[in-house]
Amino acid sequence: MAKKVAVLVVNPVNGAGLFQYLEAFFENGIPYRTFAVSESTDVKTNSGISMQTDDVIANLKGHENEYDALVFACGDAMPKFGENADMQFNQDMLVVMKNFADKGKTMIGHCAAALLYDTLGIAEGKRVALHPFIKTVVKSCIGTDEKAVVDGNFYTAQTENTLGELIPELLKVLK
Amino acid sequence: MAKKVAVLVVNPVNGAGLFQYLEAFFENGIPYRTFAVSESTDVKTNSGISMQTDDVIANLKGHENEYDALVFACGDAMPKFGENADMQFNQDMLVVMKNFADKGKTMIGHCAAALLYDTLGIAEGKRVALHPFIKTVVKSCIGTDEKAVVDGNFYTAQTENTLGELIPELLKVLK
Repeated sequence: MAKKVAVLVVNPVNGAGLFQYLEAFFENGIPYRTFAVSESTDVKTNSGISMQTDDVIANLKGHENEYDALVFACGDAMPKFGENADMQFNQDMLVVMKNFADKGKTMIGHCAAALLYDTLGIAEGKRVALHPFIKTVVKSCIGTDEKAVVDGNFYTAQTENTLGELIPELLKVLK
Repeated sequence: MAKKVAVLVVNPVNGAGLFQYLEAFFENGIPYRTFAVSESTDVKTNSGISMQTDDVIANLKGHENEYDALVFACGDAMPKFGENADMQFNQDMLVVMKNFADKGKTMIGHCAAALLYDTLGIAEGKRVALHPFIKTVVKSCIGTDEKAVVDGNFYTAQTENTLGELIPELLKVLK
């Protein structure tokens, strides 16, 4: 049976990354629900397009058991994450991410996803694909130069431009 | 100087295709404006996400001179194009597409884009990349099995999954 996926949408989000996941899930009958990492469901893509998610991150907290996998769709919100780390929606995102990982669920993400996993200490000793700029920044997980890496329950891609190599692996585990 | 691009967004649109164009344009400083092939700017992705374009196709008609290139972002609206061909927004799209082609502007698209070019007779004798299902359907242009093809002012990709091969070519001509 297809697994159910929760998709985290930062604001702004890279639309090319987000929709490579969503259209692949849609075409393969994998159910998903999108959650804005924001106070409202109104978010923007990096490219400036307004879009609406299904829900907000606050409403995913405590409902982790209803999902089998968590996608982190990266975007231009991330370079500014440091200055906004104390916002409630970012705190909620970290809690949700840790809860999914603690339950051994499938963790999926590209670009700066591994930086968050590293910060939370949830991918200890795991090999990850990640943006080249942060390869040497991560400490508890192992940064690589690979386009896509699967290690245990962690599925990571270097950037949105290498998701084509990760998505076939996602379909194997989620379908 | 960067060229200005008009982007046609059918409803529903494949978000993975649309946003690979838009994020690449955004990251490379190429100005663009999105036009819904619809009566309103509220459209959906195949994957069911609501989004808003900048404008509607009716307002692009007669303004073709303000742009250097036209992108056709394909989507699940296309399999039903036949039954909706007489809708005003679809008629407007065909007129706009013909006007761009007649002025020799850069024509960009994936999947079923070449089927529209073929119907309009604007890519006569041109080699095109297109969805495998329609390779033998096109008559005035030459269907190929290639992932991406540039022939004169026509830039085509087989599907949204092969846009990674077309986009570097687009950046060369648009930047």
